Amino acid sequence: MKPISIRPADLARPHVPLLKPYVPGLQPAEPGWIKLNTNENPYPASPRVVEAIGREAAADRLRLYPDPGSSRLRSALAAHHGLAPENVCVGNGSDDILNLLFRVFCDGEQPAGFTVPSYSLYPVLAAIQDGDVVKMEFDRSMDLPIDRLASCGATILFLTSPNAPTGVGFPASMLGDLAQRFPGILVLDEAYADFAEGNAIGLVREYPNVCVTRTFSKAYSLAGLRVGYAMGSESIISLLDRVRDSYNVNRLSQAAALAALEDQAYFEETLRRVKNTRDWFQRELVERGWYTYDSQTNFLFTEPIDEDGRAGPEVALSLFEHLQENRVLVRYFPKHALTRSFLRISVGQESEMATLNEHIETWTGSE
Amino acid sequence: MKPISIRPADLARPHVPLLKPYVPGLQPAEPGWIKLNTNENPYPASPRVVEAIGREAAADRLRLYPDPGSSRLRSALAAHHGLAPENVCVGNGSDDILNLLFRVFCDGEQPAGFTVPSYSLYPVLAAIQDGDVVKMEFDRSMDLPIDRLASCGATILFLTSPNAPTGVGFPASMLGDLAQRFPGILVLDEAYADFAEGNAIGLVREYPNVCVTRTFSKAYSLAGLRVGYAMGSESIISLLDRVRDSYNVNRLSQAAALAALEDQAYFEETLRRVKNTRDWFQRELVERGWYTYDSQTNFLFTEPIDEDGRAGPEVALSLFEHLQENRVLVRYFPKHALTRSFLRISVGQESEMATLNEHIETWTGSE
Repeated sequence: MKPISIRPADLARPHVPLLKPYVPGLQPAEPGWIKLNTNENPYPASPRVVEAIGREAAADRLRLYPDPGSSRLRSALAAHHGLAPENVCVGNGSDDILNLLFRVFCDGEQPAGFTVPSYSLYPVLAAIQDGDVVKMEFDRSMDLPIDRLASCGATILFLTSPNAPTGVGFPASMLGDLAQRFPGILVLDEAYADFAEGNAIGLVREYPNVCVTRTFSKAYSLAGLRVGYAMGSESIISLLDRVRDSYNVNRLSQAAALAALEDQAYFEETLRRVKNTRDWFQRELVERGWYTYDSQTNFLFTEPIDEDGRAGPEVALSLFEHLQENRVLVRYFPKHALTRSFLRISVGQESEMATLNEHIETWTGSE
Repeated sequence: MKPISIRPADLARPHVPLLKPYVPGLQPAEPGWIKLNTNENPYPASPRVVEAIGREAAADRLRLYPDPGSSRLRSALAAHHGLAPENVCVGNGSDDILNLLFRVFCDGEQPAGFTVPSYSLYPVLAAIQDGDVVKMEFDRSMDLPIDRLASCGATILFLTSPNAPTGVGFPASMLGDLAQRFPGILVLDEAYADFAEGNAIGLVREYPNVCVTRTFSKAYSLAGLRVGYAMGSESIISLLDRVRDSYNVNRLSQAAALAALEDQAYFEETLRRVKNTRDWFQRELVERGWYTYDSQTNFLFTEPIDEDGRAGPEVALSLFEHLQENRVLVRYFPKHALTRSFLRISVGQESEMATLNEHIETWTGSE
């Protein structure tokens, strides 16, 4: 028997045992929940996706390694966005892409910058990399602090655009200005850009230091399949290809994403429904007098007011718990002054949002 | 337009632009090839796998994130191997697991050790991590250089067991001895252990510093789906869980691997056929007088002899090229003295091996 003195944690790189894993939103195993906590699409994937998966699974190819470069998908994405295949890298979800960007550009000497609040995975990925970070706080307006960002000194800057968890979109002219002025790699994490008025893909063609990341998890209803991608200059993409796993995207995911991309009619229709529901529900919240950011995403960030007219962390938490008791999941971010009086509510189907509304009514006592 | 002076490669961590990506075996897009180059299973995945994928795809769950912990699969694997779920971590292929092990235990101060030859991904993963390495050469016997391994000074030691590309298995007693004596993390990469007489899972229960990795890509015919796993002490597994992507294994892969694991009858039957074909073909090679290692895997490593009775790199390359001209793919590793006179031939279906045999006959001129 091994001497008791060998403890694996003592052999790990010193920062690893101290890491706090990313906490994903709750994924209840049992049915019956209204799930408005992880910004999934309330509508199923395109029927053509299901067909493509069935075809691929039945074709006696599961035993074969997938295309290591996801080349058909890469070419289709390039054509879709008016880029060349050399400008696209496909990942096992856009989280894979973000992780690769940290591995290429961030370490103890090369800091990564990000805004607070934004996607809470950035600090987790920086910590895994044992990398330096520069955090830049928003104020309550959620306007882009562009001078501070441009001069933040990071080697790579991550900007969730439109932002999360607020849903706020940033004007394209402002992003172009930032790309022009920031002397590092500017990552525009466009996980939610399909739901927005504009996007920054044009900047990829213009600026060699801009990388736009996208996902099939939200607007394409494929969170279960883990497909995301980066768009950037050939130089950025070739660096990502050097550090990624050679078979990072599996066979069924490649086939499914390709089918989803090709069914643009279904995509547009789903998008239209989600945006309609979002705009209706945003008006509902505003009519209640709840401070709610204009959403360019598939979620709403709102500051609940209780029956006594109060807002604040206790009030947000109280509604969060009330909803959870009624099997409605939303997301609460208690750790930051700008988020802890708010709840983030993913846009569900219209009937789900109506049920949510009823539970809000019982909570406010207006029913 | 951005000043021309900004070049992304100049902003990358200095070692990244110098990385040479791992070169996976050729995956021809067109049909008609006999593919004996990447150790895939010649038999399709279990019909229950195809059913499970169809069920999961049709169930309106693709839009939902997968279980972040792959918990059902993790529990099933633990039960299958007589371990607890806390001893198992599931990855996006065992390459994902290997990558995580490098990220936890290897850097510029903590070297990773591996034998040469072995799985050519190890040096690639070490280089991505900008980590130190200790390489230990086999001699032609391919016996385990156990004293050198035990005292190699690495923090983590990777041993492909049975070995690749030779196919040689190592006695369990010797691996136990190494686990006992090596004062670091001992990774036994058992990608091919399903095809072997023995395995080292018993060591996981005994030694907190042993980590065994496995894959569904070979014996379970699921290379296209990217599912692998690590087994180790709770301490090792919790370190891997800290650095892995929270949604690293997608929904269909989890469902498929679970179905494959549950269909042990199919698994055993496929295994039996591959091993029978391997043993027959090994006898064929030995009868030709070709030096061939005893294989404990689903491939054979053999030193071809040409019609003039010569062996050597030119001879191996000549057969490799002859086979490729006849649309039979095998693998040739020209970079090392112990591999460059050999070819690695994956075990295909009996009819494929018979065709291979015919092409060998034309090459040797014995036909």
